[in-house]
Amino acid sequence: MNIDMIRAAAQRIQGHARRTPILTSPFLDEIAGRRVFVKAECLQHTGSFKFRGGWSAVSALTDNALKTGVIAFSSGNHAQGVALAAREHNTPAVIVMPSDAPAVKIANTRALGAEVVLYDRGTEDRDEIGARLANEKGLTLIKPFDEPQVIAGQGTCGLEIAEDMAGLGVTQADVAVCCGGGGLTSGIALALAAEAPGLRVRPAEPEGFDDVTRSLASGQIERNTRLSGSLCDAIITPQPGDLTFPIMQTHCGPGIVVSEDECLRAMALAFERLRIVVEPGGAAALAAALFHPGTFEGDAVIAVATGGNVDAAVFAKALETLS
Amino acid sequence: MNIDMIRAAAQRIQGHARRTPILTSPFLDEIAGRRVFVKAECLQHTGSFKFRGGWSAVSALTDNALKTGVIAFSSGNHAQGVALAAREHNTPAVIVMPSDAPAVKIANTRALGAEVVLYDRGTEDRDEIGARLANEKGLTLIKPFDEPQVIAGQGTCGLEIAEDMAGLGVTQADVAVCCGGGGLTSGIALALAAEAPGLRVRPAEPEGFDDVTRSLASGQIERNTRLSGSLCDAIITPQPGDLTFPIMQTHCGPGIVVSEDECLRAMALAFERLRIVVEPGGAAALAAALFHPGTFEGDAVIAVATGGNVDAAVFAKALETLS
Repeated sequence: MNIDMIRAAAQRIQGHARRTPILTSPFLDEIAGRRVFVKAECLQHTGSFKFRGGWSAVSALTDNALKTGVIAFSSGNHAQGVALAAREHNTPAVIVMPSDAPAVKIANTRALGAEVVLYDRGTEDRDEIGARLANEKGLTLIKPFDEPQVIAGQGTCGLEIAEDMAGLGVTQADVAVCCGGGGLTSGIALALAAEAPGLRVRPAEPEGFDDVTRSLASGQIERNTRLSGSLCDAIITPQPGDLTFPIMQTHCGPGIVVSEDECLRAMALAFERLRIVVEPGGAAALAAALFHPGTFEGDAVIAVATGGNVDAAVFAKALETLS
Repeated sequence: MNIDMIRAAAQRIQGHARRTPILTSPFLDEIAGRRVFVKAECLQHTGSFKFRGGWSAVSALTDNALKTGVIAFSSGNHAQGVALAAREHNTPAVIVMPSDAPAVKIANTRALGAEVVLYDRGTEDRDEIGARLANEKGLTLIKPFDEPQVIAGQGTCGLEIAEDMAGLGVTQADVAVCCGGGGLTSGIALALAAEAPGLRVRPAEPEGFDDVTRSLASGQIERNTRLSGSLCDAIITPQPGDLTFPIMQTHCGPGIVVSEDECLRAMALAFERLRIVVEPGGAAALAAALFHPGTFEGDAVIAVATGGNVDAAVFAKALETLS
């Protein structure tokens, strides 16, 4: 896993993934006490950065593998990313999703042409289900984060951050990244280490699901004690990946743990001040930037708003924090 | 008023206004029955295209005029655009706003450093108030739409549409534009006439406030019979401008009238499918693209989402249309 794989993924993705904008607001700067730059990855195709990894992985397959098809297991965003990438490659896709994923994510994945298989997040093991289906049908498994071509795809987001922040004259800053298994976090960290070494990644996680933060602190892989019951469903994973954790150990600063309420308030402020829709898990980094100013140094922070697939009821709940 | 003024405004705006992205979704294409491209001008600084016109006008002032200050009257978005442009030029700004404008717009205008003067939209004449204050204090009046440098600034949005759509290979399409007094509509129309003559502007207006549509149909300036009571407050004006109307007559196709309910549904779909926040008046063009397919020809339509400054309660009402 290295920067050349990320650069190669950027070549393959060119013209397919959207180059998402960096957004700002003087109102957010005032809350954070420093300049806040938001990489609006919720505006990516399928509403999250996961399209990058999905496209990168599918576009790296052999012609034979493309013909047979792909399989992925996902709480929703990886599902949609892989589904659309597969459809654009005319490749069949089977997606294994938890039955408690937001309804809109399940429906969207089906609408993007994928076959959806549901499982119970509390009692069944998605890895086992994915491996069995892959084996039976000869499908190529595209893991959500612990997969080199997926990490490379997510890393293309880091190349854009490096280039855009250089253009804005920001060379020293922390980059808060919403973190589940660490695919995006490690991909961005690798890209920035090569292209913008003054920009340091800080994983942001929800309270109670802070496996990466604890793993970075202890120096070994730590697990979450539960795997459901969070509004931040998109970034809940059992533990950091075998591939992603060493990369994060080498390149990331300490993790930042935010509350669900802070995520909801960050969503509301993104609505009011940036006019973007962010889902709870996708708002963890912005919540860190706005509500945990003491954890950052310097006069600028970059927050990656990783996804925007959220049910209307949850979004309405976030808006209530404005009044 | 000509294309050279728009090109000059684009030079002055470079690096100050945000180049807003073109967003798409296969789900919106399916609803509309053709490809839909959304110019997300709600992501512009201050949340609407009005920052373009504000910056263009302020940046064209003499040093003396910059020192004395500017005045603007506005239902809100022009206010914020002028206020921020003035602040970034270190120029004092007085903004005359209707007392029934959304609370968030009034608060934002004040927070951007402007002095806000409120008036009653039903009983007072904002033009008279603006002219009197301008006269008393020696301020330069920046009209919201019937002002060459403002039209030139809004036209920069059209230059971007021309360039981006050429890059996407779309050379023949209608461009639906949310239309109040016609500043943005005429600016985009002038830019496209010069740079992308196969792209034709279609003004989109809310029911009951369709002065431009009726004026284009009759060939003379028609007035609205009322000036308040619409969710689409941002694009409610008494009549098309003396400058903007002849430009629209020359370059625009027929207007399109949409209902408030269609605007709310377009807002909800923009939330769900594009992850952007659009205000009711800013959703009129997307509503036209999605719900009035019979008025367009060809396999593509471009809709300008002009603004995203909306109270949480109104947005929550839009989200209810999803269930």
